[in-house]
Amino acid sequence: MSKILQLYREKRWLVIHIQHTSDNPNSVFHPLNEGFAIKEIVQPIDGEVIIRKKVNSSFIGTNLEEYLKENEISTVVITGLTTPHCVSTTTRMSGNLSFNTYLISDATAAFGLKDQNDRYYDAETIHNISLATLHDEFATVVTTEQLMNKFLK
Amino acid sequence: MSKILQLYREKRWLVIHIQHTSDNPNSVFHPLNEGFAIKEIVQPIDGEVIIRKKVNSSFIGTNLEEYLKENEISTVVITGLTTPHCVSTTTRMSGNLSFNTYLISDATAAFGLKDQNDRYYDAETIHNISLATLHDEFATVVTTEQLMNKFLK
Repeated sequence: MSKILQLYREKRWLVIHIQHTSDNPNSVFHPLNEGFAIKEIVQPIDGEVIIRKKVNSSFIGTNLEEYLKENEISTVVITGLTTPHCVSTTTRMSGNLSFNTYLISDATAAFGLKDQNDRYYDAETIHNISLATLHDEFATVVTTEQLMNKFLK
Repeated sequence: MSKILQLYREKRWLVIHIQHTSDNPNSVFHPLNEGFAIKEIVQPIDGEVIIRKKVNSSFIGTNLEEYLKENEISTVVITGLTTPHCVSTTTRMSGNLSFNTYLISDATAAFGLKDQNDRYYDAETIHNISLATLHDEFATVVTTEQLMNKFLK
């Protein structure tokens, strides 16, 4: 993720940080709690945009769609957490809203999850299947290396 | 799916049919082609709403959100095809838009899919993991029987 961020900064392309927030004081994402702060390796610098969201999709309850359109951005590269929830939902909407969307397979990750019958699926399975259900339908799924050496040069 | 439709008709609850359409004459979903027609078992009757969509999400490019809010519908029950694409995307947006959402595990289904590395995952795996990534985060995943005997009585 830091490699892509560095490339974007060198090229002076638009970087948008999506920060998850919650009104619930018990949530780790409440501004007073530890989950809210942006991690050091992706710390925003001057001139980068921070958009705060309260649900999984970065496009719901935010001005992200309008902001991208006003800035004539048609290609979106998505990284972040977690593959099956926020990343998948945002990627789906990005593709459906007609943005040319890339999702970076090694710059996102998953936790293991239980289904409605309490059956547990490990993190790798959740990650892999989430990517498979997005690829070629909502986004082009590529590695950081593929993105940097093939698609963004 | 026909059991739930019958219950909704008996209760006179709102039924919305989502019909996928395409402007591309080569698409099976183009109005002149065979994939466009609504299947016999879920054929709309007088008074039921038909909303046409062109992307996976039933909420993008349609008036579905406004229609539900204008009609004071806060609980949505989702059935249809396919689990990983249109159904997952619509369920995610329904939950994120604050509708109380139920997804019916035995009234949706998947095809097998290949991922970005050409690795194939079978239909059952795609279906099961798609449901696991939605359950408790975007929707309550239940069977037709659970819905009818526990949640809608």
